[in-house]
Order: sequence, then C-alpha cells, then structure tokens
Amino acid sequence: METVEFTPRREQYAWTFGGVEPIMRVKPGTVMRLWTEDAFGGRLTSPADRPSERLDMSEVNPQTGPFHVEGAEPGDTLALHFVELVPARDWAASATIPFFGGLTTTDRTATLHDALPELTWIYQLDRARQTVVFEALRGELRLDLPVEPMLGTVGVAPPAREVRTSLVPDTFGGNMDTPEMRAGATCYLGVNVEGALFSVGDGHYRQGEGEACGTAVEGAMNVTLIVELIKGHAPAWPRIEQDEHYVVVGSSRPLEDAWRASQRGMIDWLHELYGLDRLDAYQLLTQISEAPLANVVDANYSAVTKVAKRLLPPADAYGGMHRYLREQAATA
Amino acid sequence: METVEFTPRREQYAWTFGGVEPIMRVKPGTVMRLWTEDAFGGRLTSPADRPSERLDMSEVNPQTGPFHVEGAEPGDTLALHFVELVPARDWAASATIPFFGGLTTTDRTATLHDALPELTWIYQLDRARQTVVFEALRGELRLDLPVEPMLGTVGVAPPAREVRTSLVPDTFGGNMDTPEMRAGATCYLGVNVEGALFSVGDGHYRQGEGEACGTAVEGAMNVTLIVELIKGHAPAWPRIEQDEHYVVVGSSRPLEDAWRASQRGMIDWLHELYGLDRLDAYQLLTQISEAPLANVVDANYSAVTKVAKRLLPPADAYGGMHRYLREQAATA
Amino acid sequence: METVEFTPRREQYAWTFGGVEPIMRVKPGTVMRLWTEDAFGGRLTSPADRPSERLDMSEVNPQTGPFHVEGAEPGDTLALHFVELVPARDWAASATIPFFGGLTTTDRTATLHDALPELTWIYQLDRARQTVVFEALRGELRLDLPVEPMLGTVGVAPPAREVRTSLVPDTFGGNMDTPEMRAGATCYLGVNVEGALFSVGDGHYRQGEGEACGTAVEGAMNVTLIVELIKGHAPAWPRIEQDEHYVVVGSSRPLEDAWRASQRGMIDWLHELYGLDRLDAYQLLTQISEAPLANVVDANYSAVTKVAKRLLPPADAYGGMHRYLREQAATA
Amino acid sequence: METVEFTPRREQYAWTFGGVEPIMRVKPGTVMRLWTEDAFGGRLTSPADRPSERLDMSEVNPQTGPFHVEGAEPGDTLALHFVELVPARDWAASATIPFFGGLTTTDRTATLHDALPELTWIYQLDRARQTVVFEALRGELRLDLPVEPMLGTVGVAPPAREVRTSLVPDTFGGNMDTPEMRAGATCYLGVNVEGALFSVGDGHYRQGEGEACGTAVEGAMNVTLIVELIKGHAPAWPRIEQDEHYVVVGSSRPLEDAWRASQRGMIDWLHELYGLDRLDAYQLLTQISEAPLANVVDANYSAVTKVAKRLLPPADAYGGMHRYLREQAATA
Repeated sequence: METVEFTPRREQYAWTFGGVEPIMRVKPGTVMRLWTEDAFGGRLTSPADRPSERLDMSEVNPQTGPFHVEGAEPGDTLALHFVELVPARDWAASATIPFFGGLTTTDRTATLHDALPELTWIYQLDRARQTVVFEALRGELRLDLPVEPMLGTVGVAPPAREVRTSLVPDTFGGNMDTPEMRAGATCYLGVNVEGALFSVGDGHYRQGEGEACGTAVEGAMNVTLIVELIKGHAPAWPRIEQDEHYVVVGSSRPLEDAWRASQRGMIDWLHELYGLDRLDAYQLLTQISEAPLANVVDANYSAVTKVAKRLLPPADAYGGMHRYLREQAATA
Repeated sequence: METVEFTPRREQYAWTFGGVEPIMRVKPGTVMRLWTEDAFGGRLTSPADRPSERLDMSEVNPQTGPFHVEGAEPGDTLALHFVELVPARDWAASATIPFFGGLTTTDRTATLHDALPELTWIYQLDRARQTVVFEALRGELRLDLPVEPMLGTVGVAPPAREVRTSLVPDTFGGNMDTPEMRAGATCYLGVNVEGALFSVGDGHYRQGEGEACGTAVEGAMNVTLIVELIKGHAPAWPRIEQDEHYVVVGSSRPLEDAWRASQRGMIDWLHELYGLDRLDAYQLLTQISEAPLANVVDANYSAVTKVAKRLLPPADAYGGMHRYLREQAATA
Repeated sequence: METVEFTPRREQYAWTFGGVEPIMRVKPGTVMRLWTEDAFGGRLTSPADRPSERLDMSEVNPQTGPFHVEGAEPGDTLALHFVELVPARDWAASATIPFFGGLTTTDRTATLHDALPELTWIYQLDRARQTVVFEALRGELRLDLPVEPMLGTVGVAPPAREVRTSLVPDTFGGNMDTPEMRAGATCYLGVNVEGALFSVGDGHYRQGEGEACGTAVEGAMNVTLIVELIKGHAPAWPRIEQDEHYVVVGSSRPLEDAWRASQRGMIDWLHELYGLDRLDAYQLLTQISEAPLANVVDANYSAVTKVAKRLLPPADAYGGMHRYLREQAATA
Repeated sequence: METVEFTPRREQYAWTFGGVEPIMRVKPGTVMRLWTEDAFGGRLTSPADRPSERLDMSEVNPQTGPFHVEGAEPGDTLALHFVELVPARDWAASATIPFFGGLTTTDRTATLHDALPELTWIYQLDRARQTVVFEALRGELRLDLPVEPMLGTVGVAPPAREVRTSLVPDTFGGNMDTPEMRAGATCYLGVNVEGALFSVGDGHYRQGEGEACGTAVEGAMNVTLIVELIKGHAPAWPRIEQDEHYVVVGSSRPLEDAWRASQRGMIDWLHELYGLDRLDAYQLLTQISEAPLANVVDANYSAVTKVAKRLLPPADAYGGMHRYLREQAATA
C-alpha cells in the first residue's frame, strides 16, 4: 500500500469544509499518517487561560486537509477507515466558552442571562495507564478517566457550492462530535465535488455523548487512516461501520429532526442490505435501535442511530468494504 | 417482608396518573407481585388486526395501580425497586397506529400526508431461548431477538392538581419508555400528593432506544417490585439507579429540552453525591455522559443521561437505598 | 335572552381545566356577565412585591367557571362570543417570575444560569384615555400604551380524562394567551365531556404577541359573553371568528409544531368553508396567511394562523353563528 | 445622486452569499435600478410544469449581485433602502416541490411518507387593479389577491469564511422571506467582509406569513434601492426600519430560537435607542411586540419581532438614516 505522511504547518490549517484548495492528492487505497491540531489551536494550556482572551473564534477547530481523492466524483462514496488514533500530546484541554454549549444561553437560544463563567480544565495524560485526569477547579475531586480517542470532525466539501466552518455538522459530515468515530471504524460519506476534498481534525482523548459544555478532552492527535473510494451509492447522511455495529449520523435542529434523519438513514440502509420493506425496517429498528446522542451544542445537533450486527443476518455493506479495510489495516 | 399480590380486573385498570382512587394501600418495604396488561389492552393478537379498528385510543396503556404508599407526602421520594420482570404471555404485539409515531405525520407535526399504513406485527416468545421472533410482513426476513423486559410506564400522581393520560411522560415519570427501567433498577420519583399514588404498566419484551414507530414489543408482564419511601429529597426529574449506572430521565419537547432537563438533573445529582460545583459537574459530565434516547414519539419526548459508577468515586445515593433494596430483593 | 351574573368567591376559583365540579349550569343562548381575577390572584400590587414571595405557583391563573352547558356532548362545538371585556380595576401588574418566560432558563430549557432578577411592574389605568402606563423600573422611561383588553385563558375540559392546570394551552383551548381573544370575537371549541365545562380567566389589559416575559398587563376583568352550542363539528384546534378574520390557534412544542397545527387547522377550515382541495388550500394559505405568535412561554407554545375575510368569498362558518351572535350582542 | 442600472445575464446570477466575485463596485449613496429573476429561474411557466423536471435544485433562487460597497469593512452596517419594487412580468408562479415546505416530510423532518403531489400554480397579474389571480387546480375557486411586492432574499457575505446557498437565512440576512422587506423599508445588515458583497433577489408579488408551501407568488422584479454605509454598529441580526415600525429578523431552528434571537435583537435595539435597561425592555416588549412569522420552510426558519413607533418616544435610529433615505428616495 502507498503510504503518505502529513503534518500541516499552522498556515496550512483548513477552517472550513469546501472553499480551500487541496493540500495533497491521494489515490484510493492510500494509507495516510496525519497529525491534527486540537480544536483550540493549542492555545489553551493552563487553567489560567481564558478562552475569550486566548481564542479567535474565527480560527477554532483547524482541520488537516483537504485531500483530493483521485477519481472521486459527485454521487460516489468516500470510505475512510481509521486505523489508529493516538494522542499526540501528554495533555489535553476543555473549557466553557461564553455563549457556547448545551446548558447555556447562546446567540440562538438567546436569553437575557450573562455568559456562564469561563473556565479551562487541563487534563494530564498517563500513557501507561491510558487515562486522563479530571481535576475539579472549584473543589478537590480528581478522577482518572480512560482514554478513548475519537475524531470530532470528519467531512468532505459540501454540496451546492457551500463552504461551511469546521464547527458545523451536516450531510457532508463535519463536526459531528460522535464517539463512534474511533479507531476501527469506517466512515462512508457521499461525495459532492470532484476529488471529495475531505479533511479531518478535532481529536478528543475522550468525550461523553452530547458533549454538553461544547468541548471534549481536546487534544492533538496522530491519525492513521486508509482512504478508499466506492463508485456511486452516496448515502444521504454519514454512515459508520464498525466490527459490531452499523451507525448513521443525522445532524439538524431541533434534535428530533437530527434523530429522524438518522433513523430514516438507517431504515434506508436496512432496505439496501436486506431488501427489507421500509415499514418492516421501521418496525425492526423500533425494537433494536441504539440511539446515543453525539452533540447538542454545535450549529447543528447530531444524533446517532446504531444497530448491532449480531442481531441481524450477515451482510456485506458496500461489497464488504469494512472487512477489506480491516484486513488492509492489519498489514499497514 | 410483607408481600402483596395484585392482578387488576379489566374494570380496575387506571388510564391516568392522578385522578383515580387508590386500588390498595401499601406500607414502605412491601414486596409487590403485580400483573400488567399490555399497552393495547390485549386487543392486538394477529397481523390481521387493524389498530384503528381494534383500539379505543382513550383506553390504551392501562396501568396497574394506583397504590397509596403509607406516609408518603409531597416532597418525599418514592423508591421502586424492580426485582423481576417476567413476560406473562407467550406472544407480544407491535403496530403502526395512524398519526402516531416518530417518523410519521401526527396531530402536532401536522403535515398534509395521509397516515402511514396500519400494520400489526406479532412476536412469538421462546422462553427457553429467551427470544422473540421478528417476522417481516412484506418480505421473508425472520429474526430472533433477545428478550430484554422493561416497563415503559412508571409514575406517580402529578403535581398541581393535574391528571395526565398514561401516554405522557413528565416530571412525575409516566410513559418514559426507557429500556433503563428493567429488573435490577431502582426508580426514584418525587412525591406530589399524599400517598404518592404510583402505578406501573406498559411492559415491553424489548424496545430500541427512541421507540421509533411508537410501540415496542408490547406484552403483559409479571412485575415484582419493592416499594420504599425516603423522606424529603424529591428529585426534579425521575432518577434510576442500577448496579452500574446512575440515570436521569428528562421529558419535554423539543428533544433538546428533554436532554437539557436530564443533563441538568444529573449535574444536580453529582452535586448532591460529591459536593461537586455545578460547573465542574458540567465539565465532568461532558466527558463521561452516556445519552441514549428513550422515546421520540410520546406526548413529551424522553432523553436519558447516564453515568457509569465505575468512573466515579464510591457514593451512597439516598443513603445506600439501591444496595439495600438489592439485598432485600435477594431474599424476597 | 336569559342573563346570568357571576363573580366567584376566592374559594370558588378553578385552577384547572377538567377535574372541577361545575359552578353553574347554563342554557345555550345565555348572556353571562362574569368577573375574573387576574393571573396573580391579585397578589402583586406594588413594584416592591417579589413574585417568589407573593405567589404560590400552584395557585396562579384562577379561572371563573367551569360552567356546564346544557345539551353539550362530546363532538359538539361550543361557541363563546365575547361581547365586552372591561378592566375591573384601575391598575394591572406584570412581573418576571424565576425560571418562567421566553428569554430565560426554565425547568425545561434547563441551563446552568441563575434565575433572572424578579421584578414587578404596576400599570396604572386611565379609563378616560383608555391607556395604561409603562414605567421603567431601572430608568426614567414612562409610556402611555393603549388598553386592548383580551382574555389569555378560555377553555373546556380536556379529552381522555385529563385535568390540566390553567397555565397550559392545548386542543381544549386553555392558556393560549393570544390577543385575538378580544371583544367581538367568537371562539369555537370542541366539546370533550358532557356539559363542555368551560371556564375563562387571565384578563390582559394589553399583551404583545409572544408574551415574552411570561406575563402580560394582568388585570381583573369584567367579561360579558354569550354562550351557544353547535351540535357536532368539533374542530381539532380552537378557532376564533372575528368580523374581519378567521383564526386558528395551535399549541405545542417546538413552536414549529404549534404553527403546523394552526396551519393544518386553517387548511381544514378552508376545505370546510369552500370545498377547497387541501393542496389548493395549502397554496392559497401560503399567499394569504397572517401568522402572529400568541405565546412562547407557556407549557405549550401557541401560534396563530389568521386569514382576512376580505380576501375570500363570502361564507357562513357554522351556519352564520358569528353574525348571529354579533346581532344578539347588539341587543344584549 | 449617482445612479446605476444592472440586469444580470443568466451566467451572471449568484447562487450563494459569499464565494462569488463582485459584479460591480458601488459607492455609498448610489441609487441602483436592478432586475431580479424569480426563484425558479423563470422555469415554471405553466400548471403543466413539474418542478422536479423543470428545476435544478442547485440552481434555484438566483441573486442579483454581489455588489462591493466601497469603504465597507467588517463591523460596519450596510443600509439598503428599497425605493420601489415593481413586478417585471405579468405573471408569477408558485409550486409544491417534493420534500420542501412546511407541511410536508423533508430531508430533516424525515418521515416515511412519499412526497406530496407536485403542483404548479400560475398567477396572472392585473397591473391596473394591482392584483394577482389565484386559480384552484382541483376546483373552481378563483380569487383576486392584492399585489404586495417584497423581496424574499437580501443579504451580505457571511462571516467566518462561509459560503451559504441563497436558500438559507441567517445573521447575514439571506432568504428571510419576510413580507416586511417591501418598498419603503430600510434594511440594516452587519458587514462581515470588505465591501459587504450584498445581493438581492427572490421577488414575491405577494406572500403570506410563514410561506407554508415553501414558495410565494414568485416573480421577476424591478428593484430600485439606495445603498448607504454606517461605520460600525453592526447589529447581531438583520434589522428593518419602516416609517411606522422597527423590525428585527431572527433565523434559526427550532422556531422558538428564531423568535428568541429576534426578541433579544429588539431588546438590544430598544436599549440602544432609549438607554432602556434590558429587563425593562423585556417587560416593555412583552406588552408591545408584534410577532408575525416570516418563513417556516427554509434551511433556517425566520421569525420577526416588530414594534410600532407610535407606541415609543421619537428616536433617530442610526442617526436618522431611514428618514434621510426616504427623503433621498423622494428625489431619486
């Protein structure tokens, strides 16, 4: 397999999906070893750092990319298999940012309250134990939490000439912030423009479902992925395949519409995999769906619909692409 | 322990929370062996049954109760520990009901579409294998699904003189439809009226998160529970304690408000358990929350916030009530 | 015409729709002269009054009623024609109540902010000029605002055995808080229980659309209305007929569902009045609808769909009931 | 005053806000006489036209522009005063487009229904009577409706490097679809990029509030406007000043968030105009707000908050800009 390595310089960061020239062209089948900066651009390093002073909100969530995938055309399906996600630093950061988050007044859930206090939590990583340490700022509690690396942001250029900030999730993927995007997963995204122009970023050393305060345990990440291309078959919403689960991510507001999009997306997938009538699939999904939230904080909220393969007959989604990529990864 | 058994006659079913005279008085500490009818009142027995012909929508989701708990006063906390949930029939039913469900036009998400087709699925139970069988109505697919019994509806009389149908979840519990309400769980509900007046029903032999079509694998259930009373400490929203998790259920619309209520409820609980400042709890929850949806179909939607005890320091919620009830259950 | 007068004593107030014995039986055709207390129960009388100290939230929004309308059966349509709404006091009150309102954190839009400050504004009424005076509490601004009396709350007993607090609007009417409910209007409500059991209250000397802070210019009101009964034809959602407009009120969350319900309700009404196909009515409504919000603060939000009669062919809704009641009112 | 005229050729249409090179540079104070194509690109001309066959959804809602305003810098306020909106054709069109609209299943309010029927209504314009004719497709009803020309889409390039399709409304204006955007109105928009890069389009010969089916009486329009620039003072959300009203437009989902944004925007404006404390402004707005919906169909929903100047003390918003532009218009 062809392998490329890429660590962007600061001036090479992409802040949007769409609207940026590709930083590199890659062939389907390429193994990519990438470095991604954290969502704060590495600017929060101490509990003394105030986000409103340290961050330029027009330059948050830097992406590594975009990459032009040779042969990718609108209507195709990009497959990104995450081989390995390894923390690239020994610390990570999280923060409450004024007017951002799920349990605060925002520019849209616009109330008359002042912003919540700005606080920054720094998490130290223990590589041996694979933990990060939560330390309360206003008390004594100190907890070891398992490292569970994931990528908050994976996406392609949007359709309809749009350019979206890297803070937004939608049909093109983007800032979905779902813990399902972890090593061992294959993400399927519909291609909207020639070359797909995908990028990745927003490493989280761990994140709860919903990402309540708006920022996870944000850390720079070494990402190893394999890129593949499936001609045609673009899904309406991002899909993820894991060894044990099929996953669809819907992103919209209100949250029930994000959930509806993900459920409808899974019904369509079950229809494709098993020829199941959509009303039968609706019934089946009603009884077997898992529905862990992803984020309820971003410009669109993201909801996940997930089904366990063990409950379903064997099937080869996209011609067995995930299994093939798992095998490739084993030899990468 | 005192033990009571109760199987309601059809004319004894309760269709509401509040507004019904207690069917029985019980002392805290009582073990109750109850029978609950299914949400269809047992009226759907064959794929040929059309819900609009068989069901009277003013008599769906019959509850067993209400029970007056001696000594319970407004502001107290009722603890219901579910010892055992055992299917009471060898079959169960699910259906699409016109203008009801998550992926259909309804009286509120009111569009100009006709109702989706009405269909009834009957699930046969295999007690030995502990499975139910999904059989596609419009194809050949047939799947064994594990039985995972739960109660869709557990609640007390509402506050503020209200009487709510058994289809509604809210602060008083009710039709939350969360798979977290299973054997081994203790549910904590704030008491609003003298005697608490709790009832239970809506057994599901299994249910996916979100309950997309609006009806789970609905079946009559034999329920064994222990009732206990905690003076004071009424939580704002229903809480559930399991051996491995703390759970809070929020119910509202839009779905993000249900989620917000459950997250805020968990932040309050973490504050109570550990003296954790609410902003620290917000941060911690951001990194450790599980957020499986419950239902996105009922009069209010229900969202779950769940945290794993293994990530937290040891604590004795409500003075160790759950552990105590587990021990009691073992001897019941 | 038969005329009755009724001023409730404090212990006769109704706090709910449903769940209360009728205070009086009236025949269709009766003219009723009623007195209604303000939503605060008259307890806020000075800017020094703090709502959290003065109000018992389980006893706000007292209703005058319920009245049993002879002959009213489920499926019938109650018509209430408001002949006159006259302020019963020379002052009125408004307030910010902790965790209540449209631009604040609430129990459901649950954030981590403290409550907004509690403030009480007292409005003096000038009967000659028909104005109330807004006086800023934290500045010098003083404005005369026209008195435009309306009733915030008009409803019947709910269906399905429910009892709802007088703070809630839904299909049964209730706390819709729409300025459309003014003298000269006829309100049509579907009857759910024998006798209809309607009540009225929550006089506003004026109110903006949306009722942002949750409380209008709240004042006791002398209400003159005529009650009539139409056999059958119960509308799904409350309708209001004025000399110049047809109005439908939908109440739900999120607000788009309240709007959808009101739009669908108007499409159904246009279908009834003109035999218009529902897709043609959808098109027509798209071009002629007025859509002033009612409230975005109550337990359900209320949205209004309104069409000007001058844009439509002549029609006699409910057999010309509104015109008939206008004539009756002229002689009352 | 300098005057420019511009009619775009088809290949000059802009389909986005942002992402397009300016078609012309204009000085503040310029009178512009522009022609705008209808939202369908003129492709729907007969009731026999099916939208799904005639329309390319990536090329709907063509904009005239963008125009680079000399001297405009981020943080400034662009003022666009609409002098005249005159229908440029003698007919206009409206249609139901599959999976688009307020009372239908969409890609996000994703249900399992098939699309509603596609229908096209053609409206003939009578210039003498200033009416358009609604003709039912599935019946005989025929109605004259007054022409009330407005622009559905007015906006500037978005912030944060984004490019948005002309179907989207947000803080940058865009496809707000409010009938408030009519001749005689001045629209104030915050400038996000050098030159502001504004464009206009989407003429409606009339539109109801909410724009239920998603398309108004869509027609090509001759637009006369005056462009002005105010240094600084960029509002968070689009503002409109009319002779009789102040207006703020909020755009988001769910609809209550659009309303919250517009209400908060008006509270801020009242604070700016009168030094009114925000809690006093909250109270005042509660009693005087008008809240007509704009659209409940686009990618974001738009809600309007509107206050009548006659209820307020005299004030000169933006130094009397609206009055000044009215005077300029009178001589243009």
